[in-house]
Amino acid sequence: MAKELKELTPRSVNYSQWYQDLVIKADLAENSAVRGCMVIKPYGYAIWEKMQRILDDMFKETGHVNAYFPLLIPKSFLSKEAEHVEGFAKECAVVTHYRLKTNHDGTGVVVDPAAKLEEELIIRPTSETIIWNTYRNWIQSYRDLPILCNQWANVMRWEMRTRLFLRTAEFLWQEGHTAHATREEAEIEAKKMQDVYANFAENYMAMPVIKGVKSESERFAGALDTYTIEAMMQDGKALQAGTSHFLGQNFGKAFDVTFIDKNGKSDYAWATSWGVSTRLIGALIMSHSDDNGLVLPPHLAPIQVVIVPIYRSAEQLTQISEKVAGIVAKLKALGISVKYDDADNKKPGWKFAEYELKGVPVRLAMGGRDLENNTIEVMRRDTLEKETITCDGIEEYVKNLLEEIQANIFKKAYDHREANIINVDTYEEFKEKIEDGVFIMAHWDGTPETEELIKNETKATIRCIPLAGDKTPGKCMVTGKPSACRVLFARAY
Amino acid sequence: MAKELKELTPRSVNYSQWYQDLVIKADLAENSAVRGCMVIKPYGYAIWEKMQRILDDMFKETGHVNAYFPLLIPKSFLSKEAEHVEGFAKECAVVTHYRLKTNHDGTGVVVDPAAKLEEELIIRPTSETIIWNTYRNWIQSYRDLPILCNQWANVMRWEMRTRLFLRTAEFLWQEGHTAHATREEAEIEAKKMQDVYANFAENYMAMPVIKGVKSESERFAGALDTYTIEAMMQDGKALQAGTSHFLGQNFGKAFDVTFIDKNGKSDYAWATSWGVSTRLIGALIMSHSDDNGLVLPPHLAPIQVVIVPIYRSAEQLTQISEKVAGIVAKLKALGISVKYDDADNKKPGWKFAEYELKGVPVRLAMGGRDLENNTIEVMRRDTLEKETITCDGIEEYVKNLLEEIQANIFKKAYDHREANIINVDTYEEFKEKIEDGVFIMAHWDGTPETEELIKNETKATIRCIPLAGDKTPGKCMVTGKPSACRVLFARAY
Repeated sequence: MAKELKELTPRSVNYSQWYQDLVIKADLAENSAVRGCMVIKPYGYAIWEKMQRILDDMFKETGHVNAYFPLLIPKSFLSKEAEHVEGFAKECAVVTHYRLKTNHDGTGVVVDPAAKLEEELIIRPTSETIIWNTYRNWIQSYRDLPILCNQWANVMRWEMRTRLFLRTAEFLWQEGHTAHATREEAEIEAKKMQDVYANFAENYMAMPVIKGVKSESERFAGALDTYTIEAMMQDGKALQAGTSHFLGQNFGKAFDVTFIDKNGKSDYAWATSWGVSTRLIGALIMSHSDDNGLVLPPHLAPIQVVIVPIYRSAEQLTQISEKVAGIVAKLKALGISVKYDDADNKKPGWKFAEYELKGVPVRLAMGGRDLENNTIEVMRRDTLEKETITCDGIEEYVKNLLEEIQANIFKKAYDHREANIINVDTYEEFKEKIEDGVFIMAHWDGTPETEELIKNETKATIRCIPLAGDKTPGKCMVTGKPSACRVLFARAY
Repeated sequence: MAKELKELTPRSVNYSQWYQDLVIKADLAENSAVRGCMVIKPYGYAIWEKMQRILDDMFKETGHVNAYFPLLIPKSFLSKEAEHVEGFAKECAVVTHYRLKTNHDGTGVVVDPAAKLEEELIIRPTSETIIWNTYRNWIQSYRDLPILCNQWANVMRWEMRTRLFLRTAEFLWQEGHTAHATREEAEIEAKKMQDVYANFAENYMAMPVIKGVKSESERFAGALDTYTIEAMMQDGKALQAGTSHFLGQNFGKAFDVTFIDKNGKSDYAWATSWGVSTRLIGALIMSHSDDNGLVLPPHLAPIQVVIVPIYRSAEQLTQISEKVAGIVAKLKALGISVKYDDADNKKPGWKFAEYELKGVPVRLAMGGRDLENNTIEVMRRDTLEKETITCDGIEEYVKNLLEEIQANIFKKAYDHREANIINVDTYEEFKEKIEDGVFIMAHWDGTPETEELIKNETKATIRCIPLAGDKTPGKCMVTGKPSACRVLFARAY
């Protein structure tokens, strides 16, 4: 796994190339032999595992259970909900056969034409259809509701332009699918999961988000409302970090999922679905990292603290290792994940660069003088500041430092976003400012036509109609027609 | 989710039907709309999650890390290893297209012939090929070795006859894939993972297993040696519960994965792979459960203790609930998962039957008299024995009882197996005894021909050549030729 350390393209030179370099050099992921599909390498996967555990606990605390539904979906299911098929048919991987056979010339294998499926199967791009087809048999009475299932799974959308984590043909995600007896309950659920996602983004990813609702054109295919959390990346572009959909009775009707309510009346079940994916790793990188490498928030870092010994003899290493063992034990007792890197085939300088690149939040280094003085050098990754402190109470010091780093990188991202959200009142100004990489709050007349025009002319889309903030009406910057409130525009990943 | 409680086919009437009934009625899984693919329902998935966490911790303790590789494999990869393609080509789901389009008559969607892939892609039946193609770029020097990756994933094998958990087209599993610098190290790894699986089977699933090595015909396609753990189900049939393969340099050579060793010489990397799947849930059911429903080992039960209140008034329920809250808190403090079921729309008798069916190891029930006497009724699921004991120290009592149940169901399964393994010396006796549902230790001449003959005539296969036990040589029961030691025969799932 040789790599050139530190040869990252600076962000100021080419942000996109910096991102690509960093994903590769920090050993997070790489492209595979299958077009558009990535290999998530152990370090990248370790971040995903941390995300999974935390989110999974949050889902369970809010009453959800996990289940697993088939990877493959009969083609006909996809067309049962009219808008849904529009949204997904164009990017489906299609299974048509179920057997290979030896080529007649003996060179490898070919598809066996005798093993053609009667109905083609689609690799799930999302699972509403197969799940609601299943729910039909699970739901008879209001007593069977709500159903609050989540699934951790791989999905596939045949994207033409792919980028590691941000847009790949196959990706990993969780998809929640709930069924309810009333419209109100389903709407509450959809908003609740938006809140769960916002909580996760802000308190674990240290990534501030704007909660809002999507415009009609940006909604999930088949939803009545899509609730979203939108984050600003360092280049001022938006990244949709999680969505929660209120699906109304669309899938209940498409798959004939009815129940008898408390009054003995039959009705269709109400639905939500909500998901976040490995895309969040891309968002994490573009929120905090710098020209030296990853900057990981302590709450998600696979290794929170690394300790590097600096020694001139085997004897000195032994002494340092003994001293460090005590520190490691104390840190672990506080639930801190710590790695002691005493590998003897790499120099301290190489290790320092490596762990900076990998975004380990705190680095401790102990040398001969530290040993004499009962001190240790502490480096924090977010600011790269170093100081030498006493070993007494080091574990409490590090614990507090980790929380301080978590808070600091959130604040940095928050300040960056606040400095780059502007109000704009004319379309001329909009077209000029959008080039600077900012979020723009502007008035819009509420029509898909105006939205489309703005998108075509500026590449900016309506990220959301924010839930909070200024609700003063005004006039559309393009058409001058009435606008209920400003909405959030940005170019997006 | 209405179901008829307790209407299980008795095991003595039809073991296979009992299994099928139980999987459905205990809400573990069901068949889906896609042939051969199952839906794993929340209760079944909760068992899988427990298995995953424990195994994942074991893998990490033995130095492994998780990663994720693509779902799809280029068709040509499969044929790079000659035996591997023989083993898997006949049951592959094949992706040939990447887009659907609206049917010209407006009725749904059809495959877009313009979106045909240049090379077909296979849904992974197992990932040796795509992973070793990736490892080629990860491995240059002995310093890059060993690589110890595991992946949790779905895989697909187009089985013609499927049974929930035991044999399904899609299933969930973990697959470890390791690369090593020496043959010895790879062999040690393969055996180590067999030990990990045996430890998991015996100490968590409470399922005794026989460790052994597969005969040539039963080996994994592409392996030099397959290490297996074999368990006896209640009907005397064998179930292969986990396998670990020593792959030699077969995949290293097929995918040109070379490295420079310590002496500067180039060599192919040595490989292992190892996996267990959702099949283990089937094994768990058939090891311990009875005509009343599931019997789950406490170490894997999603709910270890259920508490049911028996009350005649709302006031009494309040009093019982207060008392129970203290017990729940004490049990949770000991790390015991406990559910208090005070639902008022179901009678205690219904709840008792439900939790018996679901295999909850310990049931506590508290009524009015218990409240007066500071007592509680304890029922253990494995023996169905009930007793009334004092509430003082109930948490320690339950904790010990859970361990006792764990040990008891292991012993029961162990005794059953030991009572049903026999030595047989003649083929006549073999053909007679195999009908009784037993494991048979018999001499075999070591040839695939004799093995094949026995299989065709009796449906029994060589499950393994056990690692431990009697190694006395003898004569093959069929051909009379020399045999190195007795091997284990059985009919198998």
